[in-house]
Amino acid sequence: MLTLDKIYHARYVLRNVIRETDVIHAPKINPDAEVYLKTENLQITGSFKVRGAYYKMSQLSEDEKARGVIACSAGNHAQGVALAAQKNGIPAVICLPDGAPISKVEATRSYGAQVELVKGVYDDAYNRALELQKERNYTFVHPFNDVDVMAGQGTIGLELCDQIEDLDAVVVPIGGGGLISGVAYALKNLNPKIEVYGVQAEGAPSMKESLEKDEIYELDHVRTIADGIAVKKPGSETYAICRDYVDDIVTVTDDEISTAILTLMEQHKLITEGAGASAVAAVMFNKVPVKGKKVACILSGGNIDVTILSRVIDRGLLTSGRKCKLTIELEDKPGQLVKVSEIIASCGGNVTEVHHDHAPAGKDITRCELQVGLETRDFGHIEEICRKLRENGLKILD
Amino acid sequence: MLTLDKIYHARYVLRNVIRETDVIHAPKINPDAEVYLKTENLQITGSFKVRGAYYKMSQLSEDEKARGVIACSAGNHAQGVALAAQKNGIPAVICLPDGAPISKVEATRSYGAQVELVKGVYDDAYNRALELQKERNYTFVHPFNDVDVMAGQGTIGLELCDQIEDLDAVVVPIGGGGLISGVAYALKNLNPKIEVYGVQAEGAPSMKESLEKDEIYELDHVRTIADGIAVKKPGSETYAICRDYVDDIVTVTDDEISTAILTLMEQHKLITEGAGASAVAAVMFNKVPVKGKKVACILSGGNIDVTILSRVIDRGLLTSGRKCKLTIELEDKPGQLVKVSEIIASCGGNVTEVHHDHAPAGKDITRCELQVGLETRDFGHIEEICRKLRENGLKILD
Repeated sequence: MLTLDKIYHARYVLRNVIRETDVIHAPKINPDAEVYLKTENLQITGSFKVRGAYYKMSQLSEDEKARGVIACSAGNHAQGVALAAQKNGIPAVICLPDGAPISKVEATRSYGAQVELVKGVYDDAYNRALELQKERNYTFVHPFNDVDVMAGQGTIGLELCDQIEDLDAVVVPIGGGGLISGVAYALKNLNPKIEVYGVQAEGAPSMKESLEKDEIYELDHVRTIADGIAVKKPGSETYAICRDYVDDIVTVTDDEISTAILTLMEQHKLITEGAGASAVAAVMFNKVPVKGKKVACILSGGNIDVTILSRVIDRGLLTSGRKCKLTIELEDKPGQLVKVSEIIASCGGNVTEVHHDHAPAGKDITRCELQVGLETRDFGHIEEICRKLRENGLKILD
Repeated sequence: MLTLDKIYHARYVLRNVIRETDVIHAPKINPDAEVYLKTENLQITGSFKVRGAYYKMSQLSEDEKARGVIACSAGNHAQGVALAAQKNGIPAVICLPDGAPISKVEATRSYGAQVELVKGVYDDAYNRALELQKERNYTFVHPFNDVDVMAGQGTIGLELCDQIEDLDAVVVPIGGGGLISGVAYALKNLNPKIEVYGVQAEGAPSMKESLEKDEIYELDHVRTIADGIAVKKPGSETYAICRDYVDDIVTVTDDEISTAILTLMEQHKLITEGAGASAVAAVMFNKVPVKGKKVACILSGGNIDVTILSRVIDRGLLTSGRKCKLTIELEDKPGQLVKVSEIIASCGGNVTEVHHDHAPAGKDITRCELQVGLETRDFGHIEEICRKLRENGLKILD
């Protein structure tokens, strides 16, 4: 059973192992609230998961420690378990689906864990982990549905109480529910007036649906940019704690999450993964009642693939007018490209891409199309460039 | 004159104004050293500049405060001065060249400063600032060549002593030299054994050249991704302190800086601008003697334009094999694109871009070229895809 004692004990055990991550004031996230960011993306291994994993392992018997642990994860839990095992001197096997990003496989290996790549998807890796557990008598380290794991994550709640005076509310991402269970249990038992809000991705609202249906509910499928909280089914333990201690659960869209990721990058120089930015998304887009309150958002992790980050940035640049693509209709005669280039340059637009299509289908044969990719300052700047192009007799197609 | 007293006084004045930024252990930056990151990129305004600007303003007479301050900058100094003025209740005018990124203009305005956009480049804005200063009797806040400004930046040295026990060396970016002057003065006077290394961009080595030539030297031009340290000429005060207190100055290339930016993003979830990552670049690429030492790198700032960040990521992905472009020669007959797509998909490559050129100049008329942009896992993965394509009779052109 989860108790405050256990969470305080976890804090004691973790005191020289993990970082007491900084809390950063973020005045612009929501002008109506006083927002703070708990930077677990800066935690060792890049996410909070190491807290629960380490505390869980520290509580194993000497015999269990000698036999070793096993876990299954393609993400933060893998790295958390691997590092925690290394620091506890425990052998660890981590099963990963063989399509897992090489960077995560390497990070897990770098902490000294034995990585078992399993052909197939997550479920195949999970089944293989259970097989190995039985075969070799390992202890299975569950990513969330475990009292010790929850107690470890709950230490974040204790830190928040020390770091922010008179905290009114905390906003926490929910996947399986381990993080919010620990945090909500700690905070509500210390001060029942502190509000605890959970955030799920719109494409993976398993805990929200379960609480609404009053029973543990498994989603058919999940689909979200926030892979860290893409969980089909909450745990029995985490479900029970969320039911008793969480004030409300809201959802955020992938677009809202992307905007939050970009905002955290630009305003706070912090990289967060989708799950890690979801609490900020909820506060930015007023999904939770924070007006006039002192609110902490837990940035749960920062392990986002740079390829995806690059796409999030590109999308953000497009939606904020700092990048655009124009299709311009030209007469098919010499000098047209020069004309367009000159106009764009004179407006301070920076050309990044050009595609010239000589005879587009369905067009007058004397016309052709020019597609130009541009870096711009904002929508006003794009408008200015378009106006100048039109003034010079050019037709912009989209 | 700069004194330890002044730096301690600055620390006292700044105690409730700025963040005592966290120090983060970075074990993978250089395996031969114990590296710590001083995260001034997480400072309010996104850089250390606010320390010096605030302390400078706090030392003005009531009369000077009432008249107001003026500064000229297209970067971090502008935001530092604007916020410091706001917090001191002092009117501030910031001259910026009119081509400055809209984001920096907006950030400066958002702190309540009056922004004066001057037609032309930095020098024009600087001259306009001097004019306005005379006209209206403002106090000019210099970005580095000022004892109070240096004292403010020196508080980082004091914090490092408290945060890292038995520090052996510190590595500091140099533009005009304000940051390193304050930090070196503080550290060397507290413990002369602490080594202080400066880092400049290879394309802007003004302080390094000046020390080597034994006189203040002005570069003809500067060219680097690290705009925060692209300074043509050091200050007289900063030159004198660097000469007396800095152990050595080294340079890093734009490619080294880009790699450091990407490493800090991926391993530490921190966004740094070019200048901010330059100390890490110097340690990563063994430009400074750090073997066996406890070393602090100052991440001086994080205000990098996301457009540039996006380019740094793209370049990093290409140079690490996680993105590639292949040009494939095809026979000009139906079904060829299907064949290529199937081979790439079967290898787990993700197509992001396709360009089909029907009749490339200088080629056999029955052949055409296909350019494919791909997301890949690493160079081995690219090799695997190329091998499969070749095995299927396709010719890869580059």
